[in-house]
Amino acid sequence: MKKVAIILSGCGNRDGSELQESLSLMLALDRHNITYQCFAPKTTFKVVSYLGDAVETGEERNIYAEAARIARGNILDLASYQALHYDGLLLPGGMGAARNLSTYAFDGANMKVLPEVERAILETYKLSKPVAAVCIAPMVLAKVLGPMHVTLTLGNICAASQIAELLGAQHKVCIPSQAVIDHQNRVVTSPAYMVANRISEIFDGAEAVVEGMLQLSKQ
Amino acid sequence: MKKVAIILSGCGNRDGSELQESLSLMLALDRHNITYQCFAPKTTFKVVSYLGDAVETGEERNIYAEAARIARGNILDLASYQALHYDGLLLPGGMGAARNLSTYAFDGANMKVLPEVERAILETYKLSKPVAAVCIAPMVLAKVLGPMHVTLTLGNICAASQIAELLGAQHKVCIPSQAVIDHQNRVVTSPAYMVANRISEIFDGAEAVVEGMLQLSKQ
Repeated sequence: MKKVAIILSGCGNRDGSELQESLSLMLALDRHNITYQCFAPKTTFKVVSYLGDAVETGEERNIYAEAARIARGNILDLASYQALHYDGLLLPGGMGAARNLSTYAFDGANMKVLPEVERAILETYKLSKPVAAVCIAPMVLAKVLGPMHVTLTLGNICAASQIAELLGAQHKVCIPSQAVIDHQNRVVTSPAYMVANRISEIFDGAEAVVEGMLQLSKQ
Repeated sequence: MKKVAIILSGCGNRDGSELQESLSLMLALDRHNITYQCFAPKTTFKVVSYLGDAVETGEERNIYAEAARIARGNILDLASYQALHYDGLLLPGGMGAARNLSTYAFDGANMKVLPEVERAILETYKLSKPVAAVCIAPMVLAKVLGPMHVTLTLGNICAASQIAELLGAQHKVCIPSQAVIDHQNRVVTSPAYMVANRISEIFDGAEAVVEGMLQLSKQ
């Protein structure tokens, strides 16, 4: 595994990619000498306030332009992603996965996934390359790979895990420092801030995710 | 050292706090069982594009509201900072330190520092508690603590290091995995993305900064 693609959904846990998760995953990849390329869809999203309650502010921003903050400007349009050129695909968490990459936050079991996100996941899956997701992002995998009965974690049994099972996924309870590996479907998931309380747990989980991807890439 | 205050300047390396530096410092603190509280000034800043060239977009945002993205909503007004309640002060880098917390990016040697930033640094300094900064943020310390002949690093000898010396600071060359410790003034600095090329170097430097702060807090 030499180069992994990362799908970002904005910049921040309430309306984009969770920053600790995104950066911990990048750090874990880099420590294994795996390079990464960030991607994001070029669509708008509704900004959520980070001061007080997590309510919409009425402002709209672009997922791509904001995700570029995490990528230090080095980002590509998700529409241009080709699984052939990468050794795996990674989705950090944050509410952007549930609000921007999919409609899980609004529609629950009736959720839809952005077409370019679905395409990226299925293209990677079909080439038998590892697909990983943390925190709430495994909900996107539950929707796309539910028909393949993907095994994944969303932490403890919760509303999200029950909906994931409705969509066809098998849910396994997991602690933040570990990852659930589905060897058949080549999928790795870890719960991160679904259950974690501190940043060092997020990094330990990121390390477990990258090790899981490495295992799958060798099988 | 039990609790450190972190001054954020926005969200992203081009017009706020560099994310890898901010999060790596938080991770290094957490791994040493040191908690942290984020602060930011409640003033506006000019948004810079992360797509293509780093030019201003014409939009204005609030430093405090954007920095809250890094802090997952847990942030306080820098005006309320009291050095008495913290065991040290930390300034991550990113152009926010040079554009928002100070005017270094615009005024060079004639730079000014936001009054609440200057107050926070001087109050911490006067209580003999460690003050740390990485990347370009040591320029802020050069301005505020130049009269005390603070020793600091901005990586290699460069335009910034020469201006820091004009302001009264002593500059030491330093690699990203290490930190420069000024025992007399209780100041720790590390160059991070002034010279680093990858995220694992940023984390190694953050670890060196936290270890330096721990050393100073025990002296």
